[in-house]
Amino acid sequence: MVELSLPETLRWQNNELSLLDQRKLPAEIVYQRVDHLQDAWLAINNLTVRGAPAIGIAAAYALALSMRAREQLGKADFISVLNQNAQYLNSCRPTAFNLSWATRRICVAGQRQPTYQGLIEEAVCIHNEDLAICQAIGKHGAHLIQSGNNVLTHCNAGSLATSRLGTATAPMYEQHAAGVKFQVIVDETRPLYQGARLTAWELDYAGIDVRLICDNMAATLFAHNQIDLVLVGTDRVTANGDVINKIGTLNLAILCRHFGVDFYVACPSSTFDANTPTGDDVNIEQRPNDEVLGTHAAKVRAFNPAFDITPAALVSGIITEHGVTTAENLSRFLNDLQ
Amino acid sequence: MVELSLPETLRWQNNELSLLDQRKLPAEIVYQRVDHLQDAWLAINNLTVRGAPAIGIAAAYALALSMRAREQLGKADFISVLNQNAQYLNSCRPTAFNLSWATRRICVAGQRQPTYQGLIEEAVCIHNEDLAICQAIGKHGAHLIQSGNNVLTHCNAGSLATSRLGTATAPMYEQHAAGVKFQVIVDETRPLYQGARLTAWELDYAGIDVRLICDNMAATLFAHNQIDLVLVGTDRVTANGDVINKIGTLNLAILCRHFGVDFYVACPSSTFDANTPTGDDVNIEQRPNDEVLGTHAAKVRAFNPAFDITPAALVSGIITEHGVTTAENLSRFLNDLQ
Repeated sequence: MVELSLPETLRWQNNELSLLDQRKLPAEIVYQRVDHLQDAWLAINNLTVRGAPAIGIAAAYALALSMRAREQLGKADFISVLNQNAQYLNSCRPTAFNLSWATRRICVAGQRQPTYQGLIEEAVCIHNEDLAICQAIGKHGAHLIQSGNNVLTHCNAGSLATSRLGTATAPMYEQHAAGVKFQVIVDETRPLYQGARLTAWELDYAGIDVRLICDNMAATLFAHNQIDLVLVGTDRVTANGDVINKIGTLNLAILCRHFGVDFYVACPSSTFDANTPTGDDVNIEQRPNDEVLGTHAAKVRAFNPAFDITPAALVSGIITEHGVTTAENLSRFLNDLQ
Repeated sequence: MVELSLPETLRWQNNELSLLDQRKLPAEIVYQRVDHLQDAWLAINNLTVRGAPAIGIAAAYALALSMRAREQLGKADFISVLNQNAQYLNSCRPTAFNLSWATRRICVAGQRQPTYQGLIEEAVCIHNEDLAICQAIGKHGAHLIQSGNNVLTHCNAGSLATSRLGTATAPMYEQHAAGVKFQVIVDETRPLYQGARLTAWELDYAGIDVRLICDNMAATLFAHNQIDLVLVGTDRVTANGDVINKIGTLNLAILCRHFGVDFYVACPSSTFDANTPTGDDVNIEQRPNDEVLGTHAAKVRAFNPAFDITPAALVSGIITEHGVTTAENLSRFLNDLQ
């Protein structure tokens, strides 16, 4: 057994919320206290905290905190102020599905029990659920990583995006804690370098053997049999099993198909979007040219799609907190649980 | 017809050699005069001039220049100094095949005609041959680019790597000059950004419609039918037709196969290496970790292979100055010319 040391994405201690400032990683490890609702708005908006589950947890605590010592308002006004605060917080990253989901849960809890303590209990519950979900993903996916394997991942579906174990990284941390030796190849993930800045850092922090590569180097590693498994997270799985994830994911799925290597996706079952039929029905965010051009490139036009769509047929399996299934079968798999 | 405006990679005027300083592109267009052999040594070593043909031409002129007003030495001493100077110049980038090839040609010319003028004539000959080769590649490859097409290229096999038209870019410049409208998608080409810094700049300079992408974005463009052709250069083609080129090339060839898009390679026939059986017999240069890590990444280990190997079977065709053939057939095609 190896002791698992992970950075704390967020801290909830003595009724205080602190966030690891991910914009400063890997150069500095700095925590930022969230005293006012405005602090949380800004922290989520400016990517101090990022990753869908981590945003949800931070928002839940911040919204609950904003109602401290407000019980004297009376039930109706308490709920009214709570809803206003939720609406304000939701506006900091309007497309973040988990943000409004978490604030809605706090609001619903407030209607049942309109007290600061009631809201905090719901926030703690959201936090604990995420801890349990990541742990279950880790257990269900662990068998995919064997001693001596080289596992490739992309972007950051890691500890820093969640409460603790991450999604794509959970099976890695599970096996690492069990003493299994393997190497993780991390795609740097242009244009924003989440792999280079965040994933490589947190895996290295935990003591896992990491190698960073540029996104265009994976193919030659595959060709030399140096990749045994690709394991990534996802922002959304559509009804037919298509996987929406950070730009560059589709490229890896095609390399896996070409070289006969498994391509797995890890995510909480809440990532499944039954209301969107296929990946083609998802509006892919186009981000500014400047992120691609940086300071060194010619001043030309760029393309900068933030996500790509990996067809269900290229996905070997999806690892959820309830177990592993195929992308095509995910809908039925989740229905059968109900 | 469109007037074709291209940057001058090097200038030979009034017995003076000047090199476009490619390290300062795209921010500044600065020419550096080469007065002494040491200037040339440094300019090739520090990548002021880069690209196999351009290095060869610059070295040829610089070596000839180093023998100005040395005829009084007498034939034996003239040749001896010439050979010493050649050996010194070859040491600035010892693995650059074209460098020693060009200096050898100047030395052989010096034995025939041990005069400054004789050497300069040979250098001009090398220069003119490259102009003609690039032009012939452009003519032979032009039909591959049709009006409205989107052509993807990687790294810089462009004007900046040669005398003028480039190799992979020659068919683009040919069609652009003929008034054909098309778009070129340029891979930024991590870790050294030759696509972002050089190719995007020179194509834009010529008035071609350019879009820059990160290397991990090509797959999603293919998936949306936004790539009609991939056209790249090569550093070496082995006897069996395997293509050695900048890291990231293999990735594109696999995407082409997956999506049914043509993958063409453009190169002078001198790039064919009959003495190396297959790509696996080529020693791939591993470059320093720091190029991948940059200033933002976690301090971890990296992989940084400079080149990858695209199997002949993934190559739709090779465009040479003598015409187009398949990679597997290149050896016979070149033999039949002799």
